[in-house]
Amino acid sequence: MSNNCYPSGKVANILDHEYNMSHKRRGRALIFNNKYFEQQQLPTREGTDVDSKSLGKILQQLGFNVKEYTDLTSRAIIRKLNKVGSRDHSECDCILIAILSHGKMGSIQAKDTDYPLESILSPFKPERCSTLAGKPKLFIIQACQGDHKDPGHYLLEPCCTAGDNESFMSYRIPLHADFLIAFSTIPGYCSWRNTVEGSWFIKSLCEELSACGTTRDILTLLTFVAQRVAFNYESFHPIDVSLHQKKQITCTMSTLTRILYFRDNGEADNE
Amino acid sequence: MSNNCYPSGKVANILDHEYNMSHKRRGRALIFNNKYFEQQQLPTREGTDVDSKSLGKILQQLGFNVKEYTDLTSRAIIRKLNKVGSRDHSECDCILIAILSHGKMGSIQAKDTDYPLESILSPFKPERCSTLAGKPKLFIIQACQGDHKDPGHYLLEPCCTAGDNESFMSYRIPLHADFLIAFSTIPGYCSWRNTVEGSWFIKSLCEELSACGTTRDILTLLTFVAQRVAFNYESFHPIDVSLHQKKQITCTMSTLTRILYFRDNGEADNE
Repeated sequence: MSNNCYPSGKVANILDHEYNMSHKRRGRALIFNNKYFEQQQLPTREGTDVDSKSLGKILQQLGFNVKEYTDLTSRAIIRKLNKVGSRDHSECDCILIAILSHGKMGSIQAKDTDYPLESILSPFKPERCSTLAGKPKLFIIQACQGDHKDPGHYLLEPCCTAGDNESFMSYRIPLHADFLIAFSTIPGYCSWRNTVEGSWFIKSLCEELSACGTTRDILTLLTFVAQRVAFNYESFHPIDVSLHQKKQITCTMSTLTRILYFRDNGEADNE
Repeated sequence: MSNNCYPSGKVANILDHEYNMSHKRRGRALIFNNKYFEQQQLPTREGTDVDSKSLGKILQQLGFNVKEYTDLTSRAIIRKLNKVGSRDHSECDCILIAILSHGKMGSIQAKDTDYPLESILSPFKPERCSTLAGKPKLFIIQACQGDHKDPGHYLLEPCCTAGDNESFMSYRIPLHADFLIAFSTIPGYCSWRNTVEGSWFIKSLCEELSACGTTRDILTLLTFVAQRVAFNYESFHPIDVSLHQKKQITCTMSTLTRILYFRDNGEADNE
């Protein structure tokens, strides 16, 4: 069905290997931090302020213009995302959106109601945000994607007593090129959060970005975040065995078409 | 909820950065190539034999023990996967499963009926295949995930005249650690195949593996496969405008916890 042959040498050009991260500005980073919820059955997300603060700090160090929004309603979150999507990003390298909340498969909980994951992505698709077309659009989702709890080697039936989630939905993410979604957990499963130190995922992500954020590409960074979460954490609950000794694995979905580095100098000086 | 603190230096060990790819054998690669279908409305997948042959050749060069299975029924495919999952992989680096067929969201078409994508993954989860636990489990899916066609910058309503798919389903992939799924397209969208040269995705994958398969890690390789597919192909259909000038973007889902190289010598000699 194609008449468009492969032009030899197209991807052999070293300049094409990396995203251009030497625009005038790194770009905006929006952190939507939801700690308190109107629905009584949704517990306060203790520890999330540690996540938000740590993430904001490291993103700022990586050159982002960071804004944090706390306990917004779903309408306010979507309005804010649409507004940012409609702005001019011509001078920016990329955009980053971080979500810290409860969630279920395909949706995120705001202060009042939940909203579809898709509504976070769509304002930045090229047809709606042409100044980010061809640039990396990065999403960090610290939220449950279901209520399964990973015991290590066998599956449990869903339960609903802990983690960041309550129910279960069908799942669909239509993506376009140059999107990266870093999920704290795999579809169907819950995420773990330490009420003092913050979530396993955001803590590991901040550690990895602090250690190697300017020297490793984003997919390698996220691979090592997965390693930190998978190998170094295990839930502890001496009373409720259904919450004890559970594991977590992060999940990355990528349609990136180039390597992405947050270099200090903003220049692609080598591979 | 965690009492398991982060052991400093754990991921700083260079030996932990890469999967051990120096076992006695690289591992098995199974290619399930479905060209003909019992259901009359499912067109013959012309060009898929080119895909299967090219993929088998490059995987063999990378050290895999390649087996190709042509036009199996869903029961035969699942039986084969369960059988391979129950074998001893102690001496193998990894496993690779490639699917070349029609598909829709969350399922793949066999000769007779469709089967869930989940049934391809589950035989290799650690609770069922302990000798692959901690080793990379690689899945290459050349199949539609829906019937949307990407026009470049705007979305079309579903149509059902071409590509590798007919209908639409909910989508859920429960993964564990160390899984990589390389999809030819994003959820909801169809894949494109040249009836002479094979599919855009498998052709690009084979080209990338041939050029850099032993020198680049798998996530970087797949990023450049995405680039080849996104930048170098466009559908051509002078009569039916709904099939003309459509684009495609590949999608990678990863829970890998280490960097994966198919080195020639099987040794992790540097980063």
